[in-house]
Amino acid sequence: MRPPLVAVETRLGYYSDLAAAAMADFLGPDQPSPYLYDLVRDYPSRGGKGVRPALLLATCQAFGRPWEEALQAAAALEMLHNAFLVHDDVEDQSALRRGRPTLHALHGVGLAVNAGDSLAHLALQPLLEDAALSTRLKGRLVAELLAVVRQTTEGQALDLGWRWDGVVDLEPAEYLTMAGKKTCWYSTVAPLRMGAIIGSSGTAQLRALSRFGFYLGIAFQIRDDLLDLDCSPTSGKQPFGDLREGKRTLMLIHLLANADDEDRRWLVDYLRASPSDRCQHALRVYELMERYGSLTYAGECAADVELEAYRAFDEAFCDVRDSEHLDFLQGLIPYMLSRQR
Amino acid sequence: MRPPLVAVETRLGYYSDLAAAAMADFLGPDQPSPYLYDLVRDYPSRGGKGVRPALLLATCQAFGRPWEEALQAAAALEMLHNAFLVHDDVEDQSALRRGRPTLHALHGVGLAVNAGDSLAHLALQPLLEDAALSTRLKGRLVAELLAVVRQTTEGQALDLGWRWDGVVDLEPAEYLTMAGKKTCWYSTVAPLRMGAIIGSSGTAQLRALSRFGFYLGIAFQIRDDLLDLDCSPTSGKQPFGDLREGKRTLMLIHLLANADDEDRRWLVDYLRASPSDRCQHALRVYELMERYGSLTYAGECAADVELEAYRAFDEAFCDVRDSEHLDFLQGLIPYMLSRQR
Repeated sequence: MRPPLVAVETRLGYYSDLAAAAMADFLGPDQPSPYLYDLVRDYPSRGGKGVRPALLLATCQAFGRPWEEALQAAAALEMLHNAFLVHDDVEDQSALRRGRPTLHALHGVGLAVNAGDSLAHLALQPLLEDAALSTRLKGRLVAELLAVVRQTTEGQALDLGWRWDGVVDLEPAEYLTMAGKKTCWYSTVAPLRMGAIIGSSGTAQLRALSRFGFYLGIAFQIRDDLLDLDCSPTSGKQPFGDLREGKRTLMLIHLLANADDEDRRWLVDYLRASPSDRCQHALRVYELMERYGSLTYAGECAADVELEAYRAFDEAFCDVRDSEHLDFLQGLIPYMLSRQR
Repeated sequence: MRPPLVAVETRLGYYSDLAAAAMADFLGPDQPSPYLYDLVRDYPSRGGKGVRPALLLATCQAFGRPWEEALQAAAALEMLHNAFLVHDDVEDQSALRRGRPTLHALHGVGLAVNAGDSLAHLALQPLLEDAALSTRLKGRLVAELLAVVRQTTEGQALDLGWRWDGVVDLEPAEYLTMAGKKTCWYSTVAPLRMGAIIGSSGTAQLRALSRFGFYLGIAFQIRDDLLDLDCSPTSGKQPFGDLREGKRTLMLIHLLANADDEDRRWLVDYLRASPSDRCQHALRVYELMERYGSLTYAGECAADVELEAYRAFDEAFCDVRDSEHLDFLQGLIPYMLSRQR
């Protein structure tokens, strides 16, 4: 039986708290540290949705092992996630993160980049110091974390490079490649893989799991892109942030491909302008997206992705016996597409 | 017998070439990659002085093992060094690196920060994939690399934080703490330690070696600070870059402590100004440093540090038999203080 969304959110909070407590031991010395560790601890203390630790811990449980065995791995991945956020915010020149000013807005680009570097490397510590894991499993999990960095930096490079070069002739498939690397790998694919590696002592087949993670992550990203257009204060971000940053979202790619000549010319000029010049015209892009059916298109893509996610889920867990953990993992599919933040 | 400087430089070039060849296998896929791996490969391809690989490989040899056994560790450290340079240049807003525009000047801050992240994590690969090392030694060397990141980010945080907060009442001892963390750890201490760990199969005592590394690194940094004031084109940097960035060097700390009230007030205002406003007044800071003997003071400190480096060298290698490798390592002390780039 599919759990209701509120039950999914409660459980996300529970796993998130577990990971937050586990992280606390690895975020630098306890004393005040105004230039480094206070900054390192900032984003982790703001709390997140808990998607990554929940996926990792629940997958470990679904494979039959207690969450405790996967906790340090979950802390490692959550720390790496926060390190990415710090650098992402610098790279995108974002002003807000989880409802508060970004780290570089508070402390300058230099100290923020440096704190992100510190956090990204501290992230390996919980894994390396995990006494419960065998050397063999630890080696596999470290390799997973490094693969995460490789995939994420490759995806981020596409996202930034397209904007830097003013690329406007992208296909939806290129968006999927980019988002698959930039978002899915560290948000959904790696947590599932790492949880399965620990939960099965390294015997689980990872291919179908990775496919499930990919669709789940794409669902997450499309919802994220749509939430960016949501001006309600619950999102914790600046509304229209992606539009101002000129991010190549599925909606923007659709709009570029479907707008008439005049609107397209305007849009191309808009995307070539500086972010500050774009600022005042973001609403017009949104109106064009509505007019040309780009929002409807993204919604349809999300529905297709949802269907594929259910199929991949069935395949990924076909040898795993039913449990509340499995129900929760399946419940994350509709959650990804209907979450309000 | 102490080798002449030119012999030291020849040998640095030899070790540098070895490390460059070893790095090449780990800098991403061979095909063009305009947004990521082309950037990742840029700084490593510009060539460096080779101080770090030389220290690591020669120390391994001095302890009786062939350089081949330490080559992947040297590649790892050199890659991490290049990753630091990419982020350092962003954090300091530097325009030139090794005589060419910095990575962020060429590709923007976003792509440069992302490429630095990629390079910093790729740096672990040569070590993790080193088939010649035992699991135990590999574990120790990975821990050394992570300690390098911890120390370097802590030192960088002080350097940046002092400027961010406009701190003007620093003691020379605070400079030594900062430079010890920011420069010595990854430039001299870690290469010596890692070379000794491999060369002695983990049996070498590391305390005196670390002390030797500290003095060698401080000598390197003081020389670096003095070279910044050298306007000849061989330095490969913008002259007066540190003055424009307001870096708290030994000379600046001396000047702040010794200038008369009027000059000190002017200097404090100068340090609080924006970098672009500082630009046109950098020459006056240099003249004040000359007038108040701050350059002489830095030279005297360097001489003291040189003496301590020789003492620490003797202690660190007292149980190691004479060899050309040991002569070379000792020859690095005068090299650090007289190098022209």
